[in-house]
Amino acid sequence: MNGAESLVRTLAAGGVEVCFANPGTSEMHFVAALDRGEGMRCVLGLFEGVVTGAADGYYRMADKPAATLLHLGPGLANGLANLHNAKKAGSGIVNIVGEHASTHLRFDAPLTADIEGLARPMSHWVRTASGSQSVAGDGAAAITAARTPPGRIATLVLPADAAWGPADAIARADVPPSRRPVHVGAVEAAAAALARGRPAALLLGGLAVRERALELAGRIAAKTGCTLLCEYNVPRLQRGAGRVQAQRIPYAVDPAVAMLERFGELVLVGSKPPVAFFAYPDKPGLLLPAACAVTTLAAVDEDIVGALQQLAERLGALHVAPAGVARLDRPALPSGRLTSEGIGAVLAAWLPEQAIVVDESVSTGRGFGPLTAGAPPHDWLNLMGGSIGFGPPAATGAAIAAPDRPVILLQADGSAMYTLQALWTMAREGLNVKTLVFANRAYQILRGEYAQVGAGAPGGKASDMLSLDRPTLDWVSLARGLGVEAGRVEDLDALAAALRRAMSTPGPVLIELVM
Amino acid sequence: MNGAESLVRTLAAGGVEVCFANPGTSEMHFVAALDRGEGMRCVLGLFEGVVTGAADGYYRMADKPAATLLHLGPGLANGLANLHNAKKAGSGIVNIVGEHASTHLRFDAPLTADIEGLARPMSHWVRTASGSQSVAGDGAAAITAARTPPGRIATLVLPADAAWGPADAIARADVPPSRRPVHVGAVEAAAAALARGRPAALLLGGLAVRERALELAGRIAAKTGCTLLCEYNVPRLQRGAGRVQAQRIPYAVDPAVAMLERFGELVLVGSKPPVAFFAYPDKPGLLLPAACAVTTLAAVDEDIVGALQQLAERLGALHVAPAGVARLDRPALPSGRLTSEGIGAVLAAWLPEQAIVVDESVSTGRGFGPLTAGAPPHDWLNLMGGSIGFGPPAATGAAIAAPDRPVILLQADGSAMYTLQALWTMAREGLNVKTLVFANRAYQILRGEYAQVGAGAPGGKASDMLSLDRPTLDWVSLARGLGVEAGRVEDLDALAAALRRAMSTPGPVLIELVM
Repeated sequence: MNGAESLVRTLAAGGVEVCFANPGTSEMHFVAALDRGEGMRCVLGLFEGVVTGAADGYYRMADKPAATLLHLGPGLANGLANLHNAKKAGSGIVNIVGEHASTHLRFDAPLTADIEGLARPMSHWVRTASGSQSVAGDGAAAITAARTPPGRIATLVLPADAAWGPADAIARADVPPSRRPVHVGAVEAAAAALARGRPAALLLGGLAVRERALELAGRIAAKTGCTLLCEYNVPRLQRGAGRVQAQRIPYAVDPAVAMLERFGELVLVGSKPPVAFFAYPDKPGLLLPAACAVTTLAAVDEDIVGALQQLAERLGALHVAPAGVARLDRPALPSGRLTSEGIGAVLAAWLPEQAIVVDESVSTGRGFGPLTAGAPPHDWLNLMGGSIGFGPPAATGAAIAAPDRPVILLQADGSAMYTLQALWTMAREGLNVKTLVFANRAYQILRGEYAQVGAGAPGGKASDMLSLDRPTLDWVSLARGLGVEAGRVEDLDALAAALRRAMSTPGPVLIELVM
Repeated sequence: MNGAESLVRTLAAGGVEVCFANPGTSEMHFVAALDRGEGMRCVLGLFEGVVTGAADGYYRMADKPAATLLHLGPGLANGLANLHNAKKAGSGIVNIVGEHASTHLRFDAPLTADIEGLARPMSHWVRTASGSQSVAGDGAAAITAARTPPGRIATLVLPADAAWGPADAIARADVPPSRRPVHVGAVEAAAAALARGRPAALLLGGLAVRERALELAGRIAAKTGCTLLCEYNVPRLQRGAGRVQAQRIPYAVDPAVAMLERFGELVLVGSKPPVAFFAYPDKPGLLLPAACAVTTLAAVDEDIVGALQQLAERLGALHVAPAGVARLDRPALPSGRLTSEGIGAVLAAWLPEQAIVVDESVSTGRGFGPLTAGAPPHDWLNLMGGSIGFGPPAATGAAIAAPDRPVILLQADGSAMYTLQALWTMAREGLNVKTLVFANRAYQILRGEYAQVGAGAPGGKASDMLSLDRPTLDWVSLARGLGVEAGRVEDLDALAAALRRAMSTPGPVLIELVM
């Protein structure tokens, strides 16, 4: 057994069943070890942002980490943007980053770079394996780090000689710390906040937007009259008919402030105080009114469900029927132009049972939430770190984690361009991902932001930086070039027909919506 | 005037005429300032690796830095791989990386990241602007840093409030330090090395492979009988008929060792001692024989041409006819299958006068050098840092820098997938780039490396990680999807015909060569 084999077997024994990979020379022993190891599926991405974004999507649906395999510093660098998103999502990932053999570093060969330095800003845990006999232990420690609540980014740098040198044994990952129970004082403080008679809200984030937590929050809302809010972006919202709904805080500062201004009490449950996504001159950064008291029931890494359970018990709400349960509401299919509202209505009418919706719709999809609230139960995954290019990889990873569920990718065109390579992986693995590309042929969100930051009206050069229509991106050609069946629609009727066809087509399909 | 305007005007006044950009909200004031500033062309890339790779290609042809505009930490992260390549190439670049307003950082909004930490591994100079009044001075310092020999990576982090706040003045960049003359002792030592009677070679790199330096080296070779070698990768080799040739050290360790084993004296001219690209068990890292003496005439940041001039003078070689001048050799167009040798022969027969060849041909193109040595004069740009995805962006930047010259991009298919978005920028800017994609539908180089590192024969899982043929990438569709005219060829006759058509077609054209 060599170091690479001991590492692969350690990962598999530690429950890491999938490796999203984009390997190079320095990783060849790890790749060879995959051949000899049982229990690990290896999925190739043709760009590292695909690999890391897929690991994020996988974690959110599997609730356990995948591994990534990346080639030296530059390979890691290409994966950092989606590691940033994963880090903000609380997704656990074990990155294996190849490195030159330790004896080779002094030569400063072309690919030499400061891998640990690159890893640190986007990782919670970074270590360079010191040799082939100890790399299994390093791998086990990485698994434990990645599984530490709420899920962490662990990056293990693997020198080639630690991979090809001899190893005697695999290692067992320690049981990671479980989620800390909240202090009893936190439950009392939250109960007191809700009892003070001021307009109150629970702000839900992290695991608080999964079904069981939402149900508890709904009981608390029914008992106390508080409002349920959720953060603008959450890693995995379980929603649809029969589930308790929470209002999403809007992206834009003014409507967010307007929504929040009436509250005197905000109780944080797996969330943070709501802040603006960006700063704007003369707009607030913190979205809460100054007089609003903020109480933390549970931090994102604490036992959120347990805390809600205790709070519901403390309030005598455990057996109260939850408030805000969505009813099944399947509207008739609309006709007409491809507006944002119309697309939302089509989704409401059509969204399949137990769909996983990966949402990188950016400007087009901001209104989809209310429209689709009465669709059958589904999971909704948001972009957590704001780094675009999340959608296609995350849909890939989600589909690997949940092969029996349809994945619907709602994808802005500008954002899709950062990681379109993921379509190829979807085709290779035959993944059941149906992608809707909203082709407004612009960085549409930036047109709004340009005005918001007070930059005036864009002139010729500035307009050019915001538009994608010279030349027009042809998403049907792009998808076919990557082996994915594709079609283009220009109205809602065609969209509905294309969706029907897509669902009866095995594997990935892309529909370009010309907005 | 605001800070962003003062910065844009400072950059333009400092000779930074092009900004390769992929902006977001936090950069909108900089974008607005581009509208109001004269003298700066702004080129949009749909992915940051395009932006930074274009700046590398631009520097190599323009010999002066371009700016990049990147969106916060993740935007910089996506650009790091090609910054790594640029850093290893000695290409000067001024990166402007947007940051949240300084007042917003404490909120830890989703896009917040350690930008300086990300920048440092791939930058020589990093600074965060501290306010709108001083940002012009920061910009001037960044220009000076980027222009410091041989060309450096300068990264200026621009908080949104430093962009939108008031500014009174622009700043002038200091004249950067010129290339240090070499110590007289270095010239004497090199002369002595060449006179010792042992088989000697000059190893050329950096500016030593430009025409004037090569001519001087050729005179020295004629006088002393030394061999001219060049590093496997050089930033910009001026070659073709009428120019002095240097033998390229091979990529693979065994032939490189075989080439070098006869030398007893190696004189470094803008180069470093030759080392293996990767480490392999039981192969040397340093490619020189143990008995070979190494003498440095000039380091990569020193006055290389001056040093060669002094050495030639010292040896009485200044008026000797240079050795190794390539003669014009235009073979007849070959026919038959698309082999590596056949493609090289087509290039030799066809390469246009003053072409700029951007070479990311990886495994396919290793033999192109000797075959094309007698083509008309041209420049040949290599991937310097080993991070694939260099070609399409570098070709884009080279074409912007030299709009009157044809750019020929020799591109491996696997590598092209990392930055295929550059094709769109070529189409938008109407760039005269003719791309040959070598579609061997594999990470072909890794098949060789797999054996070299001693990993045995790849099994099913490993083979899957090295192949791109399930599904097949369709480069004609991909190019058309990005607005670039494209065709596919399957033999050498069709290739020659396609190249003729491509040259009579304005703007970018892509030819997929099915290998």
